[in-house]
Amino acid sequence: MQPYIILVEPKYAGNAGAVARLMKNFGFRNLVLINPSFSLDNDDCRKFAMHAQEILDEAILMDSFDEIVEEMDFMVGTTSIESKDDKHHLRKTVVAREFAKEIYKIDGKVGLAFGREDYGLLNEEIKRCDLLVKIPTSDEYPALNLSHAVCILLYELFMERYEPPEFVLADGKEKEKMYEFFDRLLKAINYPEHKMENTRILFRRVIGRAMLSKWEYHTLMGVFKKAIQAAEGKKLANSPESFK
Amino acid sequence: MQPYIILVEPKYAGNAGAVARLMKNFGFRNLVLINPSFSLDNDDCRKFAMHAQEILDEAILMDSFDEIVEEMDFMVGTTSIESKDDKHHLRKTVVAREFAKEIYKIDGKVGLAFGREDYGLLNEEIKRCDLLVKIPTSDEYPALNLSHAVCILLYELFMERYEPPEFVLADGKEKEKMYEFFDRLLKAINYPEHKMENTRILFRRVIGRAMLSKWEYHTLMGVFKKAIQAAEGKKLANSPESFK
Repeated sequence: MQPYIILVEPKYAGNAGAVARLMKNFGFRNLVLINPSFSLDNDDCRKFAMHAQEILDEAILMDSFDEIVEEMDFMVGTTSIESKDDKHHLRKTVVAREFAKEIYKIDGKVGLAFGREDYGLLNEEIKRCDLLVKIPTSDEYPALNLSHAVCILLYELFMERYEPPEFVLADGKEKEKMYEFFDRLLKAINYPEHKMENTRILFRRVIGRAMLSKWEYHTLMGVFKKAIQAAEGKKLANSPESFK
Repeated sequence: MQPYIILVEPKYAGNAGAVARLMKNFGFRNLVLINPSFSLDNDDCRKFAMHAQEILDEAILMDSFDEIVEEMDFMVGTTSIESKDDKHHLRKTVVAREFAKEIYKIDGKVGLAFGREDYGLLNEEIKRCDLLVKIPTSDEYPALNLSHAVCILLYELFMERYEPPEFVLADGKEKEKMYEFFDRLLKAINYPEHKMENTRILFRRVIGRAMLSKWEYHTLMGVFKKAIQAAEGKKLANSPESFK
């Protein structure tokens, strides 16, 4: 599902360029501009697009919102300003993150419409949308810059499909070996017997939370080994007093 | 917990202005600029900040990254480009969303550092960070514009504390009443007996998913009432054939 990112009557060429860049940053391709105040060859537009020039080259230009509504199977409006009043169902919204969970279930062409820099989408445009998505912001200053509104929505759609890279973690056997080394170290440094058990547990918890990669495991084990060797060599010379 | 948003050697005044606006959009106050290439009174900077001029007025200027590291209790670097290689633990990262879940547990001053528009954070700077946060992006073009990187991180921190506004939903009793009306409507229109049960279940599911507000409930009930009246008036005249 490749949604259409629709900018309705954008005024600033830099915003359209920034949106093209964001689309490539998050893997989207279809840009539509309804009656923009600038040419797509505008310098600012091209400069802000950086390495996403092809998104501008392939952008679709249209004269009116009605035209794109007819092309789409499911039209989504966006806003960061929400009516507090339950009765204005025209502006009743779904938040961006919830929407991201649903969008990939929709069959057909999905349009995501972003309004003008100053007025957003007009009520007549919102009426023609199947759904209004809200981008949560602070009540004190809810109006996002156009490209930042697009940024958040595309990011949420991207995150819905994102799988964080897996690190090869140290396995249970390796961790046990590390706890064993830690034990040997405690003994080698004459760690006080009555504190031993608590410190062992604390170390297990720290390592548990740290989610060690194999490589981190081997590096740290190297450190332990050397520390144990050094401490065992000096054991007789050391006084247990130093740990009290 | 009010983190410090730290821009390290930003080149473009417009970016600093856009960041100030974003900070107000998401309820953050503390902006730090390390050795910027422009004055905070720069026209572009002020223009992009829109209604967040006070964030710029109160911004802290510093000469070096070292200076701010000493001020912070927990320093976080940011990147959208991650090493695939497990061995470069210098760049091993936590993704933004996971980080947002942890940040409010940190005691003390937290700094979020964003690197230069072209080179990001330098390795020497990353080394001084307690944690490196990754903003997930497409592999094809991972480099975000500076203000969009800030946008995503602040949005994630904001969302961690965000509670969507509650709508007063129609309660169970009201929904039962609606199902009863729907039943009456089916009968009034001579809906075929053998399809009745499936259609009833379908209607319940649709209403269940729709999460009706009280106001939507009352509006739709008004529609049902009128429909039932009209249908019951015409019942004798209608043929059941029309529903086959």
